[in-house]
Amino acid sequence: MNGNLTDSAARAGLAAFYRDTLLNDVMPFWLRHGLDREHGGILTCLDRNGSVIDTDKSVWFQGRAAWMFATLARAGGFQPPSEASSKSSTVPAIHAFDGGWKPPARADFLTASRSCIEFLRAHCAAPDGKLYFTVTREGRPLRMRRYVYSECFAAIGYAALRRATGDEAWGALSRAAYESFLRHSFEPGLIAPKVSPETRPMKALAPLMMTLVTAQDLREDFGDVTARGRTMTEWAGWAVQEIARDFVKPDLRAVMEVVGPAGEVIDHFEGRLLNPGHAIEAAWFILREAKARGRDEWMRLGLDMLRWMWERGWDREHGGLLYFTDVHGKPVQEYWHPMKFWWPHNEAIIATLMAHLLTGEDVYAEMHRQVHDWAHRHFPDPAHGEWFGYLDRQGRPTTELKGSMWKGPFHLPREQLLCWRMLEQAG
Amino acid sequence: MNGNLTDSAARAGLAAFYRDTLLNDVMPFWLRHGLDREHGGILTCLDRNGSVIDTDKSVWFQGRAAWMFATLARAGGFQPPSEASSKSSTVPAIHAFDGGWKPPARADFLTASRSCIEFLRAHCAAPDGKLYFTVTREGRPLRMRRYVYSECFAAIGYAALRRATGDEAWGALSRAAYESFLRHSFEPGLIAPKVSPETRPMKALAPLMMTLVTAQDLREDFGDVTARGRTMTEWAGWAVQEIARDFVKPDLRAVMEVVGPAGEVIDHFEGRLLNPGHAIEAAWFILREAKARGRDEWMRLGLDMLRWMWERGWDREHGGLLYFTDVHGKPVQEYWHPMKFWWPHNEAIIATLMAHLLTGEDVYAEMHRQVHDWAHRHFPDPAHGEWFGYLDRQGRPTTELKGSMWKGPFHLPREQLLCWRMLEQAG
Repeated sequence: MNGNLTDSAARAGLAAFYRDTLLNDVMPFWLRHGLDREHGGILTCLDRNGSVIDTDKSVWFQGRAAWMFATLARAGGFQPPSEASSKSSTVPAIHAFDGGWKPPARADFLTASRSCIEFLRAHCAAPDGKLYFTVTREGRPLRMRRYVYSECFAAIGYAALRRATGDEAWGALSRAAYESFLRHSFEPGLIAPKVSPETRPMKALAPLMMTLVTAQDLREDFGDVTARGRTMTEWAGWAVQEIARDFVKPDLRAVMEVVGPAGEVIDHFEGRLLNPGHAIEAAWFILREAKARGRDEWMRLGLDMLRWMWERGWDREHGGLLYFTDVHGKPVQEYWHPMKFWWPHNEAIIATLMAHLLTGEDVYAEMHRQVHDWAHRHFPDPAHGEWFGYLDRQGRPTTELKGSMWKGPFHLPREQLLCWRMLEQAG
Repeated sequence: MNGNLTDSAARAGLAAFYRDTLLNDVMPFWLRHGLDREHGGILTCLDRNGSVIDTDKSVWFQGRAAWMFATLARAGGFQPPSEASSKSSTVPAIHAFDGGWKPPARADFLTASRSCIEFLRAHCAAPDGKLYFTVTREGRPLRMRRYVYSECFAAIGYAALRRATGDEAWGALSRAAYESFLRHSFEPGLIAPKVSPETRPMKALAPLMMTLVTAQDLREDFGDVTARGRTMTEWAGWAVQEIARDFVKPDLRAVMEVVGPAGEVIDHFEGRLLNPGHAIEAAWFILREAKARGRDEWMRLGLDMLRWMWERGWDREHGGLLYFTDVHGKPVQEYWHPMKFWWPHNEAIIATLMAHLLTGEDVYAEMHRQVHDWAHRHFPDPAHGEWFGYLDRQGRPTTELKGSMWKGPFHLPREQLLCWRMLEQAG
């Protein structure tokens, strides 16, 4: 499929593959089946053919989808805008998909993004401002969780819609959401830890990754503004340094998910647990920062993280990326550990392509070929489009579910968009 | 293996199989590898060969193992007591297992039970008396959870040790633990619900099952004492009636895991989720109550639950019991749903045998043969004894882990003990 990435025609062909699959398969699936034309926002719990199997709404996905839709509205590659007003938040029936094929227009994406954002703003915050994790279709509260990733996804959703529409009203909401994320995540005592901090103090990779990628996205949208007294560049740099100092273990050739306060490896199930797809996602966030800032040592860091965690996660027997492994090769307690989930493959497709385009090294092109080919052999649904989410170790789908509270228009279309644009820019 | 259960010699052979595997394989594995000879209590996070891979301790398993050990100490079938004092809580090195084989003696079980109970009492309660979910090897607090199943397992552990030793000191602790479970579970507001009770009030099968089985066990140990103003028999009967009225759906031929306040089926992922092994466990709790009280309508209820949930869970393609299914046959969100876990098979082995012995009907003998044979073809570890815990849908172990925070000496040895005794009593 992607052949020789050093050949310009092959790169253009691969760029077209990502773009076309994104615009003609994946996003139409969500525009057609996911948008809630009655209550606004997006429904992500969809069966194989796109029918809704749970009407509850993920708050993560109101922000993530708003970001994806608004970012695509700026990405070009569309048909001319349809007659649908880009000012209305009432999502029109997706006329194009039922008969003769017509790709969605820019206005369809803007309208969809606005619908998600307006649902998010109207229905997804608790009285104290903290965002829920799930709400009903109508927007009544269901579940609040301790952590605050809903806030990161809201921040990028608001920011992308502001940029796509020029409507500054969304800007303040975006920055407030990121501030709320930072405050809850790093001001001690606001999120009750699961494990007693007196007995076993721990810190996790995930909030640092979210700090980094959200700062990067907001910097692109707003310029280098400040939040809680630091610029976006300072937040991003701080997160990279924390990850490098405490989570990346050159002696173990591994990236930890949780460590002690000074980066100690915690020799228990939870501390030994590696999540290769997650760490590979962190690797490309760091490569992106290295490129933006011209920092060679961060480039080396991101490349090391990618290679080490590929070694840890690539299944030499059946191909694909294992979900969890143990840093010392011991058995893992989480019983779904050998399954192949869709999103680690999206993240690895991005990271390997980025690494290759940044370095020109063949090793990353070969890794990219491997994961791209394995993923496209196993995940896409030939009958109804989009990807299955969950395969067994051998690569067979274990469910026909197309979306859930965890799977919606994010990792896959983000991968397709980024890879399309990276290849296009590489020329 | 179990041939024709209507033949007395076959029943005796099967009884011997369960007894011998229990006393010569499963319990020696835990006595030898699990007991913490330094700090007391039991370690359950064991690798395939029994080596400890996580020293953190499950509070559930301090109570569960104490119950199992003390119950076995009363069950007979042992070598004469060894010289080890049954009064000491210092666990002796298990001399018998390293060279020539010698089955554990009654005193070994009593000592082990006392060690778990003393660790539980000394280290596993928060200052307010609520029990933790996990503690360190030394007994420092790690994790508190909202729900209160640690209390049920503590209640049966204390009660069994009291009965095996005649030491009344454990009796009060047992009854206090059950009272704490009942108070937290059924006094509104003490356990914060995950899902907003204003938006979607729900109730779950699990606390009713735990109410029932714990009341049954305590009634056997104490007689029909009271807790929170009801006798054990009243608590058990109330739980059976709640399950029958609100969770068992004859029109759907299904037992729900969560329902609305009046038993409404909640048409969302969580509400549609069936856990066949769990419901089959509930079925034999109800059969046991039906037999104890001579209640024919509960007998029919338990038999219906067993047959319906067998239909829902038995994998016609690969054999074994699926972990989760959807009441309307829709895809399930929990991604490990098609795996085969050890414990549903233990519960189904008990339930089918009990159903056959109570009714004499061939259909249950045939179900018992099916699940017994499938389980024994796939779960036992021929190299190091005990069972693997997690198989893929095809029946291959996905991990070599022999124990974890979830798997220890409970479902498997309880099954072996109950089946041995039921067959023995059937003669």
